[in-house]
Amino acid sequence: MPTISDSTRGEFALIEKIRNLSAPVPEGVLGIGDDCAVLPQKDGLQSLVSCDLLVEGEHFVLDRISPRELGWKSAAVNISDIAAMGGRPRGTFLSLCLPEKFSEADVLEFIEGYNALSSRFSCPLLGGDTTRGKLLCINVTVLGECPAGRAVLRSGARSGDLICVTGPLGDSATGLELILSDRSSDPNYQYLKERHYLPVPRVGEGMAIAKAGAGAMMDISDGVASDLRHILKASSVGAEVDCGAIPMSTQMQKTCASLGLDPVEKALCGGEDYELLFTIGEQELKRLDVEHYVIGRITAGNSLVWKGSDRDYLGFRHF
Amino acid sequence: MPTISDSTRGEFALIEKIRNLSAPVPEGVLGIGDDCAVLPQKDGLQSLVSCDLLVEGEHFVLDRISPRELGWKSAAVNISDIAAMGGRPRGTFLSLCLPEKFSEADVLEFIEGYNALSSRFSCPLLGGDTTRGKLLCINVTVLGECPAGRAVLRSGARSGDLICVTGPLGDSATGLELILSDRSSDPNYQYLKERHYLPVPRVGEGMAIAKAGAGAMMDISDGVASDLRHILKASSVGAEVDCGAIPMSTQMQKTCASLGLDPVEKALCGGEDYELLFTIGEQELKRLDVEHYVIGRITAGNSLVWKGSDRDYLGFRHF
Repeated sequence: MPTISDSTRGEFALIEKIRNLSAPVPEGVLGIGDDCAVLPQKDGLQSLVSCDLLVEGEHFVLDRISPRELGWKSAAVNISDIAAMGGRPRGTFLSLCLPEKFSEADVLEFIEGYNALSSRFSCPLLGGDTTRGKLLCINVTVLGECPAGRAVLRSGARSGDLICVTGPLGDSATGLELILSDRSSDPNYQYLKERHYLPVPRVGEGMAIAKAGAGAMMDISDGVASDLRHILKASSVGAEVDCGAIPMSTQMQKTCASLGLDPVEKALCGGEDYELLFTIGEQELKRLDVEHYVIGRITAGNSLVWKGSDRDYLGFRHF
Repeated sequence: MPTISDSTRGEFALIEKIRNLSAPVPEGVLGIGDDCAVLPQKDGLQSLVSCDLLVEGEHFVLDRISPRELGWKSAAVNISDIAAMGGRPRGTFLSLCLPEKFSEADVLEFIEGYNALSSRFSCPLLGGDTTRGKLLCINVTVLGECPAGRAVLRSGARSGDLICVTGPLGDSATGLELILSDRSSDPNYQYLKERHYLPVPRVGEGMAIAKAGAGAMMDISDGVASDLRHILKASSVGAEVDCGAIPMSTQMQKTCASLGLDPVEKALCGGEDYELLFTIGEQELKRLDVEHYVIGRITAGNSLVWKGSDRDYLGFRHF
C-alpha cells in the first residue's frame, strides 16, 4: 500500500495539507509521495522506508480472517512497498494495539504468519511496540535498501514506455467477494481466498525490473485504475490501457461469470493484488526475465484511455 | 518509550515470546530489546530505529489534551528514543487512525505541534499512512544515526559506574495528577502541565553523554524505578540509589506537599519525564558538560537498594 501520497481527494487531500505544513526535507531525501521514502546512505546505497496502519473494521473483519493470515498479510503488504521501489527489504518494526478478545495465542499465531512471510525475504522483525486498546490495530514499518539513485519512483514514466504488470489481477478482490458472501462452496474459493489473504510481494521481480531499467513502478494496492493515475500524475504523462490485455486467472474469470461480476472491473478496480505495475521502454523490456504482461502504453498529454471498453474505471477510494 | 523490551512480566513476557518465535537477526544488527534497533551502514555510521504506538483511552484522553499538545508529545517521545542511544534523529514516519470526531482542523493542529517539536531537531516528517477508524491511534517511527559502534545500549553498565539523570524527575506525573483532578487553580499548574504535555527530548545531551563515554543509557518513560531495572538486567549488575539525591523541581515538591503526595515516589515511579538515565565512570563524568545529577552507583551482584528509604519502588506497569 502506498505511504502518504499526492492526489486531490479524500485521504490524499488531507495528506497534501499535511505535506504543505511540514518542513522541507533535506537535499537528496525523498519524503512524502511515493511507495517509500528514500534516504541517502554515504556508501552507494539508499535506505527505503515505508509504513502502513491496518485497523480492525476498516481493513479487516476479525471473524473473517485467521490471526495467521492477518500476520502474513500485514508483513506482505509492507514488504511489497519495498518491492515497488526495486529494493531489498532489511527488516520490519511491528506495533500492535491488542484488544482483550485477541488472546495471547492469537498474537503468537499472528507472529507465526508474519514470520512465515518475512522469512521468505530474509526480512527479520527488529522491534516494535505493544499496547492494550479497544481495537486491533497493526502498524508495520519496513526498512529496505537499493543502490544509490536506483529506486524506481512513480515519477519516471516517459511517453512511449510500455505499461506492464507482473501477474494476473482481480484474484484478491474476487476472493474477498467470496469471503464476504460466505460462498465457500465456490470451486475456486480456496485459490481466490489465498490470493486475498496470503499475497506474496514481488521482491525478486521488483529488483529485476529496476535493474532492467524501468521508468516508474508501484505495487497494486488500490487497483490499476487508481494506482496508474498516481504514476501518470507524478510523471505528467497520459496512458492508453488495452482492456483486452489485462491478465486474469481462469479461476477468477469463472467465479466472476458465476457471480455475474464484470471481471475486467474487478481486475482494474479491485485492488490488493500486490503485483507490480511498471513502465519500461521496449528495448529495456527485452532484458527482463520475469513474468510480466504488457497492458498498455504511456502517452504524451494527460488523458487516460481504456481501449476496448466504453466506460471509465476508478480505483478504491480510502476516505 | 522503549521499543520491544525484555522483562518477565505483562507486556514484556509477551514480547519475549514474540522474540523467541522470530528469526535471528543478521550479524551486526541489534533487534528487539533496547530503546532502538541498530543496523549497520557501510560507511562508519549506524542506523537507529524505534517506534511507538499511542492509543486513545490508553495513553491519552482526547478531551484532556489539545491536538497540538498531542502532536508535540507524539514526536517528542519517539525522538527521545534516539536521544537515549546517543543518536541524531534524521526523520519520522507518522501513521494516524482518525475517528470522525477528530476533525481535519484537529489533524492540522496536531501536525503543527508535531512539526514544532520535530523542527527543533531538524527531524522532518518523511512519510506515513492515514486511515479512518473508531479510535484515534498514532504510530510514530523515528530514524536516527550515530557513529558505528557508538550507540549507548542498556547493557553497558559496569560495577562502580555512577548513575545519573539529566534533569528533575516527577514533574510530568505530578502534572498529570493536576490535569486528571482538574486542579487548574494550583499555582504550578501551567508549569507542571507543560512538563507533562510538552516534553523536550534530550538529543544534544544524549550525544554529549555518548561522546563522554557513558556505559549504559535509556530515556525515562516508565520511571527510574522501572527503567533502571532494564539497565541492571541487561548489564547483569545491581545498584544503590540515593533517594535523597533525586533531583526534583521546587514546583513539583510544593504541589506534592499540597496534594499530600510523596514526591520521591512520583519522581521514581511516575514516568514520562523523558530525561535521560545513564551510567558513567567517574573519570568520564568529568568530561561531561551537560546538566546532570548523580543519583547512585552501579554495584556488583543483582540487588537494587533504595538508600534513605524503607520501601521498594516499582515503575509503571504496561499491561
